[in-house]
Amino acid sequence: MIFKEETMSSEMIYNGKIINLRVDTVELPEHKYQKREIVEHPGAVAILAINDKKEVILVRQFRKPVEEVIVEIPAGKLEEGENPRDCAIRELKEETGYEAKNIKFLNEFYTSAGFSNEKMYLYLATDLQAGKCCPDEDEYVDVMNVDLEKALNMVINNEIKDSKTIIGILLAKDL
Amino acid sequence: MIFKEETMSSEMIYNGKIINLRVDTVELPEHKYQKREIVEHPGAVAILAINDKKEVILVRQFRKPVEEVIVEIPAGKLEEGENPRDCAIRELKEETGYEAKNIKFLNEFYTSAGFSNEKMYLYLATDLQAGKCCPDEDEYVDVMNVDLEKALNMVINNEIKDSKTIIGILLAKDL
Repeated sequence: MIFKEETMSSEMIYNGKIINLRVDTVELPEHKYQKREIVEHPGAVAILAINDKKEVILVRQFRKPVEEVIVEIPAGKLEEGENPRDCAIRELKEETGYEAKNIKFLNEFYTSAGFSNEKMYLYLATDLQAGKCCPDEDEYVDVMNVDLEKALNMVINNEIKDSKTIIGILLAKDL
Repeated sequence: MIFKEETMSSEMIYNGKIINLRVDTVELPEHKYQKREIVEHPGAVAILAINDKKEVILVRQFRKPVEEVIVEIPAGKLEEGENPRDCAIRELKEETGYEAKNIKFLNEFYTSAGFSNEKMYLYLATDLQAGKCCPDEDEYVDVMNVDLEKALNMVINNEIKDSKTIIGILLAKDL
């Protein structure tokens, strides 16, 4: 049986730069109560950018939460009131320098619906024009162009360990 | 340029039931400093369970963070010291009643490496034997068996909006 959990009370624990944390007390069937820890996130976009040589644009960057350099497709969080499509164009330019003449919505998904409301909007970018990168002040990324077939192998071999990147590359197979 | 961010100081904001929140101050190039908000998670498993009729076992459940009933493959978090493979067998049984004679590791990935260390271990379960469900006290799920081809359409149509589930079903295509 599926049960919509009504909020009985809500406590804001932390208001951060990127995320907030709140704890809701919800009602379950038979008048039982349970706490739900919820990470609020503004949402994000990810861009599967493919150039005319059928290469996908990937970025390598150090991710503090996992203490590792990982390979990802370009991505970034939504600014307040920003349209996901505009955000995709902006983030692609900022992280890689590429401008896309073609931007197409592919898919949207929750990255971790058990504890966060983060929603990821995935776009396909093609007709790319190279330009100068302008990353955020605290962003340090390496850009690489990888043959789509090779990127797919990197998913299968588990060299790529980032969920949005795996989804983008697996979807690219059938484009 | 890629730069490993050294932790200068770390503040624990919240110690929860499932997640913790800490804020690290890290050093960037040129002696600049930045805060990183990090959600600690014990890690989780997800199970792509496919029966002899080529149906995938899906669960529908209300997820408080997103205030929505969503469709997912069975999943659950790792208990302390628990082996991911044992966790996969346990969670599949708890959520769906199925016992799998065959369990195979498929892939592992970070769900949201920008703000959390949550790692998801994905397993393929086959040779399924139906049995009685025994969900956790505060879990309410509907189990459904969906033809693999139909599940793939649900991904393409974006009816399925859960990252681990999208990855599992897209990988299943080539199994």
